[in-house]
Amino acid sequence: MLARFSGVTDRGLDTTVPPGSDGRWSRRRQWAADGVVGFMMKQAVDHPECISLAAGLVDPQTLPLEATREATQRMLADESRARAALQYGTTEGAQRLRDLLLEYLAGLEGVSTDQLGITPDQLVLTTGSQQLLSILCETLLDPDDICLVADPTYYVFLGVVAGLGARAVPIESDEGGMKIESLEETLQALRDCGDLPRVKLVYVVSDHDNPRSVSLETPRREQLVEVVSRYSTKQQIFILEDAAYRELYYDASPRPSVWSFDDRRQSVVLAQTFSKCFSPGLRVGFGVLPRELVGPVTDLKGNEDFGSASFNQYLLATAIEEGLFHPHVQRLRATYAAKRDRLAAAVTKYLGDVEGVEWLVPAGGLYIWMTLPEGVDAGWGGTLFERAVDQEQVMYVPGDLCHAGSDDVRPRNGLRLSFGVETPDRLELGVERLARAIRAEL
Amino acid sequence: MLARFSGVTDRGLDTTVPPGSDGRWSRRRQWAADGVVGFMMKQAVDHPECISLAAGLVDPQTLPLEATREATQRMLADESRARAALQYGTTEGAQRLRDLLLEYLAGLEGVSTDQLGITPDQLVLTTGSQQLLSILCETLLDPDDICLVADPTYYVFLGVVAGLGARAVPIESDEGGMKIESLEETLQALRDCGDLPRVKLVYVVSDHDNPRSVSLETPRREQLVEVVSRYSTKQQIFILEDAAYRELYYDASPRPSVWSFDDRRQSVVLAQTFSKCFSPGLRVGFGVLPRELVGPVTDLKGNEDFGSASFNQYLLATAIEEGLFHPHVQRLRATYAAKRDRLAAAVTKYLGDVEGVEWLVPAGGLYIWMTLPEGVDAGWGGTLFERAVDQEQVMYVPGDLCHAGSDDVRPRNGLRLSFGVETPDRLELGVERLARAIRAEL
Repeated sequence: MLARFSGVTDRGLDTTVPPGSDGRWSRRRQWAADGVVGFMMKQAVDHPECISLAAGLVDPQTLPLEATREATQRMLADESRARAALQYGTTEGAQRLRDLLLEYLAGLEGVSTDQLGITPDQLVLTTGSQQLLSILCETLLDPDDICLVADPTYYVFLGVVAGLGARAVPIESDEGGMKIESLEETLQALRDCGDLPRVKLVYVVSDHDNPRSVSLETPRREQLVEVVSRYSTKQQIFILEDAAYRELYYDASPRPSVWSFDDRRQSVVLAQTFSKCFSPGLRVGFGVLPRELVGPVTDLKGNEDFGSASFNQYLLATAIEEGLFHPHVQRLRATYAAKRDRLAAAVTKYLGDVEGVEWLVPAGGLYIWMTLPEGVDAGWGGTLFERAVDQEQVMYVPGDLCHAGSDDVRPRNGLRLSFGVETPDRLELGVERLARAIRAEL
Repeated sequence: MLARFSGVTDRGLDTTVPPGSDGRWSRRRQWAADGVVGFMMKQAVDHPECISLAAGLVDPQTLPLEATREATQRMLADESRARAALQYGTTEGAQRLRDLLLEYLAGLEGVSTDQLGITPDQLVLTTGSQQLLSILCETLLDPDDICLVADPTYYVFLGVVAGLGARAVPIESDEGGMKIESLEETLQALRDCGDLPRVKLVYVVSDHDNPRSVSLETPRREQLVEVVSRYSTKQQIFILEDAAYRELYYDASPRPSVWSFDDRRQSVVLAQTFSKCFSPGLRVGFGVLPRELVGPVTDLKGNEDFGSASFNQYLLATAIEEGLFHPHVQRLRATYAAKRDRLAAAVTKYLGDVEGVEWLVPAGGLYIWMTLPEGVDAGWGGTLFERAVDQEQVMYVPGDLCHAGSDDVRPRNGLRLSFGVETPDRLELGVERLARAIRAEL
């Protein structure tokens, strides 16, 4: 593990690869080498005995088997729809689904489709929302460009930015999400040192984020758009709003998106997915794009895969049209809320008496974020992770992976605990094991 | 049309974009701008009245509706398979399908799976083979790097290379495919001028290629591997063998792949797809990779989409396991062979008496390549294309798009005529209309 560890220590800031340092590979390949996603997946494969509080997978028991059976059957029974599903589609995706998504989005925002202020051609369907994140970064970021991110943030996204030789700069955040005054301070500091033209993007997971399940407070959403607009003097700085967990609210009321505060629909890209709220195996995500980004994103997507699978797009459209989608999301919320409660209760039971151990009980999403006393090393390649995996057979996502910046500044005392994939009983057992490992470290 | 035309005139050679020439976009976006794929798709959408001898789509009447119905039903009836299909998979794709593809590949090569000399982990599943082409280029090509291509070649691939700021250098080819002595001359010339370290890749569509439906002669396959190996002194030059049309042989016997001549399995990447031989709407392609490329390709794919849709991979695996795939391919061959005959007969009927009009009747694939007398402008933005589309309502792919190199050296008297999508009667009607347009130009 330690041998690979060195590969990411400089992941956040030092992205320079000497040109020609390995003649076989492109610089892009070298920037993407030793990614943490691959490492975490390998850990899971190498340690099947582990209870996984790490995996961001969805609960296998909640997967929409019946809904998919019915939707598939109906889709394929309709001759012309079946043929469209089996044929090439356009790069931007099936019109039928994009029309439905306009209504779906209007429902989430609590407005009519007319009030959305966009047309269906501003919706682009992608292979999960991950592909949209990747293509948008490719569209905007040159090597050494800057993307501002809430700290901590979705670690896979940090890999995307690093993989383009660009820099992720962390913005302080609290239980209300990214702190807007910190964002403004950083933008001002970057302007002062002449780096503002390098800033192309601000990334935020707006609802029940990854890794902490905190949501950006509503007033901050409006402020975010306003501040970024104020610093977009020489060129537009875009905001990438990743709303992957938008549908997974349990206690909280859903909020209007950051995107909804962008009155002119020119600065915010809204990324959503049906991976968390329906089925990740279908890999259907979508982006709502400012008009000027539609061409750039579809040009790149055309080169990369022509377009995502029509079959899956028509299948999801059928599930929505036939009323199979929404009831599934309702059931999902109830299941995850109960699992969240079970995981939170287990943490209280097994770690409630340990001073300096803190955690957030989230109102939605799939994760509980825990911090240990400073000085305890829960990080990647650290002793707790090794003890947890090797001795206690329980796995978590080391929180340091979720922080941008160089190794020496990234806190190593955080843990992301997922209640996504395991059963309630195994969640409790996982925490019992993890607590033993933590106590042994203290 | 002419306004956009300027966007690709320098597509082959001059890939330099002044850094910061448009602060909003990355260089990558600028290289990918005004891609010809988007243009051709837009032409199709804007001119629905046209008979399409252009589209590389598959015949809608041949799409495997019944096979897909049955495979889907069986897959979803199996509880554990259904859950796996609906869940996230690994980046490299479903093991079940990869195991089957090892057998499938052995069948195509006419050997046992043991004799293939690879393990299933060298097979990576992608979103069509297009994604493999794109990721492989990203893995290998830096800006200004060189990819050698048969001339003419698959025009979408030229867009991929240009989209990375790299250069496609054309290699002369004849009815036996890429001429190996021309390849060697070019490699030697590049070595002489010090550019050999820039050469990372040789791209060839080995069977019934796009746009001419010619196949690389078997002896040349072995020579190709040998010559490239001889010039791989400082670093490995890889060969990308695109075998998208491998299953679509009508008269000819199938050949062993170029890949099969790479005894050490270290220089050839074999790209295949189920888009042409089963369903493009599923977007299932795969690559057979030299061992050292597996990590680089999956690292990049992990960043770009985690992995392609599990659902489609399990669906295809089921179709193969249940014996639904192979009979479909048999039927497909018969259908396409008949359509090829009809298109070829129509060309003879309507253009057989015109001096200087020549065409190849292919033994497989989806295209008839036609050349007009030199000086007739059949190219993009030229008068024939405009006349064909606007006055005669018939569309083809202008052959100049399929040539690498700068505008002034690319021949403009070639046409790619597809017999993929239209019915036999409309194929004949299309040629009748095209012949009128051609005669008017002469």
